[in-house]
Amino acid sequence: MMQPLPTPTEIASAIRNVPDFPKPGIQFKDITPLLADARLFSGSIDLMIGNFKPGMVDAVVGIDARGFIFAAAAAARLQAGFVPVRKKGKLPYHTHEEQYDLEYGTATVAVHVDALKPGSRVLLIDDLLATGGTAAAAAALVQKLGAEILEISFLIELKFLEGRRKLQGHSVRSLVSY
Amino acid sequence: MMQPLPTPTEIASAIRNVPDFPKPGIQFKDITPLLADARLFSGSIDLMIGNFKPGMVDAVVGIDARGFIFAAAAAARLQAGFVPVRKKGKLPYHTHEEQYDLEYGTATVAVHVDALKPGSRVLLIDDLLATGGTAAAAAALVQKLGAEILEISFLIELKFLEGRRKLQGHSVRSLVSY
Repeated sequence: MMQPLPTPTEIASAIRNVPDFPKPGIQFKDITPLLADARLFSGSIDLMIGNFKPGMVDAVVGIDARGFIFAAAAAARLQAGFVPVRKKGKLPYHTHEEQYDLEYGTATVAVHVDALKPGSRVLLIDDLLATGGTAAAAAALVQKLGAEILEISFLIELKFLEGRRKLQGHSVRSLVSY
Repeated sequence: MMQPLPTPTEIASAIRNVPDFPKPGIQFKDITPLLADARLFSGSIDLMIGNFKPGMVDAVVGIDARGFIFAAAAAARLQAGFVPVRKKGKLPYHTHEEQYDLEYGTATVAVHVDALKPGSRVLLIDDLLATGGTAAAAAALVQKLGAEILEISFLIELKFLEGRRKLQGHSVRSLVSY
């Protein structure tokens, strides 16, 4: 059942542009046609985990909610654990929290205090790198737990927002750029 | 790397009871210790997909947000597509919607109108079967798209809430019951 990995062009062609969502003027990148295509979804996971193999990663950290999709599939493929980073108030146990800036106001993400053992080798995965605020906050939470971030991986990168500047010092991967 | 499948007792012992979350009197079933354990997470996915093998399932439908974790991992394992059912207003494209009753008031879930081809063979997955309202609404959406539900699978079932009564006519699986 091994199939050739999809090309960036194939992946990009399965991402639908939805104008004016969630508000006027925003071009939303709708990944659901990609997810629904078994070959493209599976191939995207392979490309997002890059050269990492089972045994090299202890946990994949995914960011609520679309990041869960890629991170959980990557964890299954890498035979690793899965750790959720969620918006504040969603996780039931004791948490560490990290606030970050939005265009207007702030947001806060959280992780359970016992989510990762110190020294754990972690991949951090989300669907979209925009301004980088969420990913940088999630990375800070992982590091607060004493774990090591091997790589931060995204399906889509909006290059014009320069989100990588907030992730300096990390290895950052993305499959499709706009 | 094949490991023995976890027993229900092992799975149950990795689910943490958090009292009074999200509100006083509720005993929240915290699955994050299970997810963080690579062997138990992987084994739970194997048990949730049961006897289905790659080629037997076209798409795994997951319910926002914890259902995404199990459904995406199951889709990766079954080489199937992944389809999200989300709370109303979260999906960017045209949707079908289904309303269901909560203890106080109602909620509405949605699926993209082009999420599944008619005749697609679908597994529907969520983390928790409680009253069954969400799963029944999600199942109705899948059927509205003309797809066939092979099985509905949960990690946890709260038997005293009798959620299976809302899923009559479907094959329903759960790994751990309370």
